[in-house]
Amino acid sequence: MNINKNYLNLESSYLFSTIAKKVNEFKSANPNKEIIRLGIGDVTLPLPKVAISAMHAAVDDQAKKETFHGYGEEQGYAFLREAIVDYYQKKGVKLDANEVFVSDGAKSDIGNILDIFDNENIVLVPNPVYPVYVDTNIMSGRKVVFMDGNESNGFLPLPDENVKADLIYICSPNNPTGAVYDRAGLEKWVEYAQKNHAIILFDSAYEAFVNDSELPTSIYEIEGAKKCAIEFCSLSKTAGFTGTRCGYTIIPFEIECEEASLNKLWVRRQTTKFNGVSYIVQRGAQAIFSDEGIAEAKENISYYMENAKILSKALDEMNIWYVGGKNSPYLWLKCPKGMKSWDFFDKILTEVCVVGTPGAGFGENGEGFFRLTAFNTHENTTKAVERLKKLKF
Amino acid sequence: MNINKNYLNLESSYLFSTIAKKVNEFKSANPNKEIIRLGIGDVTLPLPKVAISAMHAAVDDQAKKETFHGYGEEQGYAFLREAIVDYYQKKGVKLDANEVFVSDGAKSDIGNILDIFDNENIVLVPNPVYPVYVDTNIMSGRKVVFMDGNESNGFLPLPDENVKADLIYICSPNNPTGAVYDRAGLEKWVEYAQKNHAIILFDSAYEAFVNDSELPTSIYEIEGAKKCAIEFCSLSKTAGFTGTRCGYTIIPFEIECEEASLNKLWVRRQTTKFNGVSYIVQRGAQAIFSDEGIAEAKENISYYMENAKILSKALDEMNIWYVGGKNSPYLWLKCPKGMKSWDFFDKILTEVCVVGTPGAGFGENGEGFFRLTAFNTHENTTKAVERLKKLKF
Repeated sequence: MNINKNYLNLESSYLFSTIAKKVNEFKSANPNKEIIRLGIGDVTLPLPKVAISAMHAAVDDQAKKETFHGYGEEQGYAFLREAIVDYYQKKGVKLDANEVFVSDGAKSDIGNILDIFDNENIVLVPNPVYPVYVDTNIMSGRKVVFMDGNESNGFLPLPDENVKADLIYICSPNNPTGAVYDRAGLEKWVEYAQKNHAIILFDSAYEAFVNDSELPTSIYEIEGAKKCAIEFCSLSKTAGFTGTRCGYTIIPFEIECEEASLNKLWVRRQTTKFNGVSYIVQRGAQAIFSDEGIAEAKENISYYMENAKILSKALDEMNIWYVGGKNSPYLWLKCPKGMKSWDFFDKILTEVCVVGTPGAGFGENGEGFFRLTAFNTHENTTKAVERLKKLKF
Repeated sequence: MNINKNYLNLESSYLFSTIAKKVNEFKSANPNKEIIRLGIGDVTLPLPKVAISAMHAAVDDQAKKETFHGYGEEQGYAFLREAIVDYYQKKGVKLDANEVFVSDGAKSDIGNILDIFDNENIVLVPNPVYPVYVDTNIMSGRKVVFMDGNESNGFLPLPDENVKADLIYICSPNNPTGAVYDRAGLEKWVEYAQKNHAIILFDSAYEAFVNDSELPTSIYEIEGAKKCAIEFCSLSKTAGFTGTRCGYTIIPFEIECEEASLNKLWVRRQTTKFNGVSYIVQRGAQAIFSDEGIAEAKENISYYMENAKILSKALDEMNIWYVGGKNSPYLWLKCPKGMKSWDFFDKILTEVCVVGTPGAGFGENGEGFFRLTAFNTHENTTKAVERLKKLKF
């Protein structure tokens, strides 16, 4: 037996463990100081009530023979896939329920989708980047090329005609930068993909944070995208499902591929390697897509976005360059005076007891940048910015 | 962009759709006849009460900020992994909680585990076989060799020293045959695996149906197995979780591999491509492993095994050769008078309105055999055997 040797090419990710270690050391040395965490990448508010009620009812269904649910469709129950179709209808995107695949979260499907593509495909990912895009491709031995996000393009790289790619990762609103592509930007990517017979893997996990109605929240709002894009989304950030686990993947019938229907390949993959998402969770997710559910989820998002405003305002006052925070729970700031990411981390931890995430942890182009998140409370966020504003650089 | 061309080598599985089509045609032609299904591979009794209570409480946890659970460990909550460790302790198997990985079901992990192995590995699977073992390997382009299950070995093939294999699939109690390896049989496999530096992928999804205390319910009851075996199990059949979704995979620290720790490779795979099982479901699973939960789950299994007894008794009276049904919900019978599987299917459907599963659907060696299952009600199972006994061959 031999192992998959590609795994030996993976770099260990020490980002969050290094942060934890530094914070714990500081805490031990300064037990009375109150640390405020603006590095949290997880939701903190409870689930919308409508999902709670729906899941209680679903648990009760599992208690009675007449309403008991055994194996469901691997692709997800029709009730949920149709609710997702309706949700997209409101964005002006028309889908068929068989183009929608319910998953246990976007992370699973973003990794697993690679099963249906050739290992010789060239992969294009932005830098800085959500590490999962890179690592899943290293695991299968694919060649990864990077496109530069930086201050001059606002961390929203556009296609370079000289770069050849087969699979392109786009995350908008972006994790970690919070930057959001406008329609014109996405149009360029769709055009590039079609011209190069490439597939866009579009991660829209943060779509619910988009306030600006001019910004697309689905790649399918762009003409031609159904011919070249797969979209991954999740209820994790939309409705606080990070621990409840439900997402979905859209593979249009129309995607152009000479060899086979990608939609059918994915059906084959999922029916062979997956057995669907818990009935109870799918009922909770269905409730989220009701009018009441959408309203409740929006309320939570507004709470987080109030924090993003508090953070944005402070950065504006401090004259610090940043992207994000307008249509995303993330703010990506340029460390003042050319400081390095980890130096900035150390400075704000030791001087004002605020924790964030060093941009260098997301790739070379993140060096000199820093991520703050909007998932703490109003009180703590306000307190944190007051502290940050006192800093001298 | 190119697709993974291995997918083009997959054979379409029409087994269950062909069955459905034939049954529906018969129904349309004979609307007043009552069909009894003994082909059901899914549980039919509701979840144990203890799991229902635990999941209601967990849903309530998700409704309050103080008890809300966001992202959990990809590997599963410690409370569940420790409950699984305790469950194994009762079998005399000592595990560390970090050798246990909670999954959304055995099917997912049985497919995904291949990610950590080289595509050049040679795979050994029994014939007849649960199709997932074969298809997941075809998807990654591995060479699959078969070992013959047949009447003379009671559908429990033993190692052949002339066959070289790197990965060996063993399912005991077996799906589809219901045959169960005894200690001596598994010892031979562990010995073979160690000698050949092979890994046994042991599927114990039906372990809870084993009545005979002499039969092992975990590969780790065999000395040396921790050096060469990964075990997959599930609450699907143990506790009716087919639609609730929870399973687990055990990768011992001790597995011998020069290149890397398989346990650590799997941690890397799961942290990159998975985000854990729903908190709510994990609380339900934890409850199943309590004394009360085990007792309730056993009651349901006893109900099914009463059906298996009814079926066994009938086959004995009819003088039909079969395996299974003693420590498994499946009975695998030899079609009388050398009939082919599908001819037997047609005969019992049209003459006595009973539905089962043709063995030929599970591989060449299944031809001439037929699977009956114990998941219907006592009333229907009794009625079905009365009908079967009237048949003339």
